[in-house]
Amino acid sequence: MPESLVAARPGAVPHGQRRRLVLRLLRRPNERPARRLIARLHPADLAEYAPLLTPSELARLWEVLLELRQGARTLRELDGDTQRRVLELLSDEQIANAVRRLAAHDAADLVEALPEERRAAVLVLLEPGFATQLRNLMRYGPGTAGGLMDPDVPRFFAEETVARTLDRVRDLAEGRRLFYLYVVDEREHLLGIVSLWQLVSAPAERPLREVLSGDVVTVRVETPESEVARVFSRYDLLMLPVVDEDGRLAGAITVDDVLDVVEERATEDLYRLANLDVQEGLATKPMRSVRLRLPWLLINLGTAFLAAGVVSYFQETIAKYVVLAVFMPIVAGMGGNAGAQTLTVLVRGLALGEMDLRRPGAVLGGQTLIGLVNGVATGLLLALVALAWERSWVLAGVLAFAESVNLTVAGFAGAAVPLALRRFGLDPALGSSIFVTTATDVGGFLAFLGTASLLLGSLQP
Amino acid sequence: MPESLVAARPGAVPHGQRRRLVLRLLRRPNERPARRLIARLHPADLAEYAPLLTPSELARLWEVLLELRQGARTLRELDGDTQRRVLELLSDEQIANAVRRLAAHDAADLVEALPEERRAAVLVLLEPGFATQLRNLMRYGPGTAGGLMDPDVPRFFAEETVARTLDRVRDLAEGRRLFYLYVVDEREHLLGIVSLWQLVSAPAERPLREVLSGDVVTVRVETPESEVARVFSRYDLLMLPVVDEDGRLAGAITVDDVLDVVEERATEDLYRLANLDVQEGLATKPMRSVRLRLPWLLINLGTAFLAAGVVSYFQETIAKYVVLAVFMPIVAGMGGNAGAQTLTVLVRGLALGEMDLRRPGAVLGGQTLIGLVNGVATGLLLALVALAWERSWVLAGVLAFAESVNLTVAGFAGAAVPLALRRFGLDPALGSSIFVTTATDVGGFLAFLGTASLLLGSLQP
Repeated sequence: MPESLVAARPGAVPHGQRRRLVLRLLRRPNERPARRLIARLHPADLAEYAPLLTPSELARLWEVLLELRQGARTLRELDGDTQRRVLELLSDEQIANAVRRLAAHDAADLVEALPEERRAAVLVLLEPGFATQLRNLMRYGPGTAGGLMDPDVPRFFAEETVARTLDRVRDLAEGRRLFYLYVVDEREHLLGIVSLWQLVSAPAERPLREVLSGDVVTVRVETPESEVARVFSRYDLLMLPVVDEDGRLAGAITVDDVLDVVEERATEDLYRLANLDVQEGLATKPMRSVRLRLPWLLINLGTAFLAAGVVSYFQETIAKYVVLAVFMPIVAGMGGNAGAQTLTVLVRGLALGEMDLRRPGAVLGGQTLIGLVNGVATGLLLALVALAWERSWVLAGVLAFAESVNLTVAGFAGAAVPLALRRFGLDPALGSSIFVTTATDVGGFLAFLGTASLLLGSLQP
Repeated sequence: MPESLVAARPGAVPHGQRRRLVLRLLRRPNERPARRLIARLHPADLAEYAPLLTPSELARLWEVLLELRQGARTLRELDGDTQRRVLELLSDEQIANAVRRLAAHDAADLVEALPEERRAAVLVLLEPGFATQLRNLMRYGPGTAGGLMDPDVPRFFAEETVARTLDRVRDLAEGRRLFYLYVVDEREHLLGIVSLWQLVSAPAERPLREVLSGDVVTVRVETPESEVARVFSRYDLLMLPVVDEDGRLAGAITVDDVLDVVEERATEDLYRLANLDVQEGLATKPMRSVRLRLPWLLINLGTAFLAAGVVSYFQETIAKYVVLAVFMPIVAGMGGNAGAQTLTVLVRGLALGEMDLRRPGAVLGGQTLIGLVNGVATGLLLALVALAWERSWVLAGVLAFAESVNLTVAGFAGAAVPLALRRFGLDPALGSSIFVTTATDVGGFLAFLGTASLLLGSLQP
């Protein structure tokens, strides 16, 4: 059966209270019960426990794992940090052995995780054909269909009979998830696909040419992985063939690889909107988190001085009417919230491809209008509260006006910033929340303190 | 071939400049070229164009679609709003006809999209067995394995031979994605699985019992869909059998359904952190967006008054040292940013299951520590700037202290709020950013204006 489906039954998957027992056994992998446990654990489970071990425990565990042939897959499942730690513990030969046991695209990921200088040393130890395949995969880049695909898919020829093809299917190495057969001509151009179900149902002597389905969704090697994910989710695919510029079959992508891409990209959007580095997670050591977050906080500090500068310009006004300072956090908070709403709808819409059918101008106009209407609505309410609290019609008017301007700016900037970033070929989420917050802070304070200063005389309580 | 793999070649998928031509044709579906186009378009593509048509154009298109048997799948692909519009246009008979053509879990989704009073009317028109199946699916709820699964998976018996099973596989309706066969005993308990590949490779006279793999990952009907998604991505599965409390096979989930779940849940996290309703997207009409966003803005306005209240308490101090008002937006902005960072790491970590192996206390402590260290670092820098700008050692000290407190609060609240929400069985992202911002605003202003008031005398420039 496909290796990936073999895992402990749910009841046997270690969890909760079992954790300490498993950890204790992993810490002495040279004993028999420990080895038995390691042999039974799924690589995904082993990968979860590895970061909790000390370097020497990890080294001992790895010796056993590499013997047991599970090391390769476990290595692939490790998070970036732990993977780096383990790779440092292993020799080039050990790594080459692990790489050999992985499917080509997983192997390429592992080699890419090595420091530049060790990559060549490991590739030299591999069979030349496999090494070339890995170099190809690394060439397409990790963010493309070429980097995601498994180039090692069997090709079937259009003129072969169903019976001969079934024989070949039986001969192909076990553990392969062979559900769709790709049918090519003698120059490897993709002609169509035959599902295994169709194959067992077709007359034995018919050539594949007469069995295949020709209308196949394909992507090109250079198609970005976000587009690949969209194609999968749009057409509910399990596998997707990848072709080169001449229509020749280059490989195939399986949906479980795309599942990881979708999850990673969603995390990326979420993280970039919050100004976080994608490497961080709950497992990150606190001091590493500090280093990863600090640069963003410093950028934010820099732009916050812009807002402070605007306020500083109106110090005299505030000195006379301190109540203005009381309402400042409300102006800033509402603008920030409305800006985050717009920004999130835009970033997610761009990621999911919702933008493809829309004109940027129309979206920009729509979001600005939403900001204006919500600004007027909340502005009027804010004015009523100010009126009840401070009994000043002028302050109420200033607040209603400032809130409307603030949320209009939030709608406009929340849409304009990601659209502009994307126009310049940048990630629409990267740093965008800092731009938008700065815009709403500066716009909001200018509108609020500016009109207050103009109406200075009439503001006298 | 599996229906879902049949789609236009990439070149034939309408995009960009073709859009106008396609729309023009869809608008007069009764002509021959229009019908030809509709018959060739993939339901996912049709679903994308449908929202751009007027009600009468839509009604005409639908008449043709239901004739062409594509209506059912297109209906399923529509976004919520358009689906509702189309369902209103159709009679109960037409809907029942469409429901009949869908797989059980898709059919259940469609029936659930109907207003309460029409559901019974449509179910009565269906075959009693199918209607019962749909009622069952609706019972498990859309957020569980039971609601995601297709209950209609073929069962194979352990004592049957490989040859007989292959005959049955050939007889099963085309269009089914039958890659794994589920083997059960006479009481429908799941014994194991056989992949189609294993089946064609096994000796013809052997019983399935001797061919099957018994170690199968399963989930229960009541398993939440987030857990289902985690199991799929953890073990790289294509299909996952679902069992009831007695271990009987209840159905199976295919990975493409999970792909949608992962995408929807990622959008949910993102949206909830930004205080947005998940129904919103770039296609939402502006006035609907206004209505969806306004309630959140009003909640935010309510809590913003808390921060305003704190500032109002220190009005006298601000009146004397207006420079405090200048630094207020910096305190609020930095706290907000650091809080969003912590909150996002927590919400994503909870969603991806990273929290399962960690103690809440340790995470809370770690995040608070990160906040403290970053607070001290940015606080010192802020103090230096204040010193250069205002030449006041006291102001510098107050700022450094307030910034440290502010970011410590951000770290603590950013972790405590989602952990507490989860503890009470609520979504850790829902409304959490409002709580956290309120905490950092109140904490930051209290620390800043409070210490400034205490040191009032020495603050004199």
